Amino acid sequence: MRDFSQDHHWLSINTATVRKQWPLDRIIDECARRGIRAISPWRDQVAAVGLEKVARQLRDAGIQLSGYCRGGFYPAIDGQGRQAALDDTRHAIDEAKTLNAPCLVLVVGALPGALAGKAQYRDIGRARAEVHDGIAASLEYARQVGMPLAIEPLHPMQAAERACVNTLEQALDLCDELDPAPLPGSAPALTPAFSRQDRQEASVTASGAQLGAALGVALDIYHVWWDPKLQQQIARAGHNAGNHPTKNRLLAYHVCDWLTPTRDLLNDRGMMGDGIVDLNKIRGWVEQAGYVGFSEVEIFSDLDWWQRPGDEVLDTCIARHKAVV
Amino acid sequence: MRDFSQDHHWLSINTATVRKQWPLDRIIDECARRGIRAISPWRDQVAAVGLEKVARQLRDAGIQLSGYCRGGFYPAIDGQGRQAALDDTRHAIDEAKTLNAPCLVLVVGALPGALAGKAQYRDIGRARAEVHDGIAASLEYARQVGMPLAIEPLHPMQAAERACVNTLEQALDLCDELDPAPLPGSAPALTPAFSRQDRQEASVTASGAQLGAALGVALDIYHVWWDPKLQQQIARAGHNAGNHPTKNRLLAYHVCDWLTPTRDLLNDRGMMGDGIVDLNKIRGWVEQAGYVGFSEVEIFSDLDWWQRPGDEVLDTCIARHKAVV
Repeated sequence: MRDFSQDHHWLSINTATVRKQWPLDRIIDECARRGIRAISPWRDQVAAVGLEKVARQLRDAGIQLSGYCRGGFYPAIDGQGRQAALDDTRHAIDEAKTLNAPCLVLVVGALPGALAGKAQYRDIGRARAEVHDGIAASLEYARQVGMPLAIEPLHPMQAAERACVNTLEQALDLCDELDPAPLPGSAPALTPAFSRQDRQEASVTASGAQLGAALGVALDIYHVWWDPKLQQQIARAGHNAGNHPTKNRLLAYHVCDWLTPTRDLLNDRGMMGDGIVDLNKIRGWVEQAGYVGFSEVEIFSDLDWWQRPGDEVLDTCIARHKAVV
Repeated sequence: MRDFSQDHHWLSINTATVRKQWPLDRIIDECARRGIRAISPWRDQVAAVGLEKVARQLRDAGIQLSGYCRGGFYPAIDGQGRQAALDDTRHAIDEAKTLNAPCLVLVVGALPGALAGKAQYRDIGRARAEVHDGIAASLEYARQVGMPLAIEPLHPMQAAERACVNTLEQALDLCDELDPAPLPGSAPALTPAFSRQDRQEASVTASGAQLGAALGVALDIYHVWWDPKLQQQIARAGHNAGNHPTKNRLLAYHVCDWLTPTRDLLNDRGMMGDGIVDLNKIRGWVEQAGYVGFSEVEIFSDLDWWQRPGDEVLDTCIARHKAVV
């Protein structure tokens, strides 16, 4: 297991963490100033500054992406809605390419209308079927352009409104169905998106071949920490588990903490170390499975961290990354 | 599937649903007045009125129990705490016997101290091991006196504070380990607790043998509706799934609804029909698996139903039971 205690080489900041404090260009500057090497920005933050401008600023600052947020939200009440979701996700894939992201994170969606408190139907099985078909459609284009898609299983408390993929096992079942492992003996497919040095560090076998799945998962401990099958399914996701080496499904790893009590179902995440998640143990499982990428901090916190100065938030992320992640 | 639309023969009221309005003796009277045949009371409500008095009142009113709430909360920081939990659960078993309950519901507990915001450790695996051992210990006594124990998997959002058994699959794995199915051909064990007529309706094979597991589950749709493996695991739990007939694990079935948005992680449950759960479909799965017991309404609702007159709440439960359950 990597030693994080000496530096923050493997720290990434999901830019939602300081979204209430600063626009994206300022966030990039503040990260660069602190030697933070990676971020994961949201589409609306990028759009507010301008895609090309952000791409240039990232290049100039030497900051890479650990992911791009986000595509998905596939279920809709009619064909027009479903097509709009596919088009939107295609745009997200294009933006991710422009920003040289290692993957596009998919928050897959759930019951149409539920996010506005007006679910159009109650059949979560139907929503799951629409998600299956939506990912399959997005994957065709993602493969063409070489942008891995990372399904993010969301906590079951968000199953109605945001994502009906709610366990790592469910996400991996989808991956295996839509992006099956190559037959033993076939040549590993090179995923163009995995081209930067750090991704290569995370994806090079003893033989030097580049590895990576077209479809994988973004594992956020906030959503999955409670899962009794977590250790087992993390092992399944990795390339140290007897999987074909191109099928390391672990494309991103997000951290924060679970507070007791949790006062809001969406925006009351804790800073690492302030809650009850056994972060070190879970990172051990993830690295055991072969993940050696960034540890991305993603904290939505209306009541606490979004109220504090951005400097304090970033400095605390660095300190906690070294102390408890 | 049973037709609920004509009457409320299979309705039970979990007495927490009107706990803010009335003491238990009044709740029993109000249920009797409405022809509600079953309730599931909480220990503190029983204690406030008096155990023997409640038992007598239930007999006089002809009201039976669909369950008794609750034992469990096994994990503790030391041996003294663990022994106190075992003693407390033993008392709960005795009370359940006095009240002639068909099962004692177990809310198994989680990280010690987390409910008070001060978790004593972060290792949920350790809490799960303590729960395993606690149930095993309680089960010895429960078998002696013939009181089935019903593990209630709680929603993952309550995994830190209230129960670290969070999926039906996990609960059934525990059942199979601690209360394995008899070998094919062995005589079905008669479970004395299943002695009242309605439980017999729910537990009699063609050959007339009484059925029942010593350890099973209380399935509350609020906690499990989101689970992608729900249908599969319900089928596994039932005695129509190739299980030995004494191993129908479905000991209780609880309903309410999941609201969008949900404003509180504990006390914002919805009345059936006001949320997004496909109640009828899930009851279909449960009955397909062989469950023919009560449909127990359990609604914790600080912001809505606990603020309304008890009469309105009970009348609404009856109406919704017929219309949407």
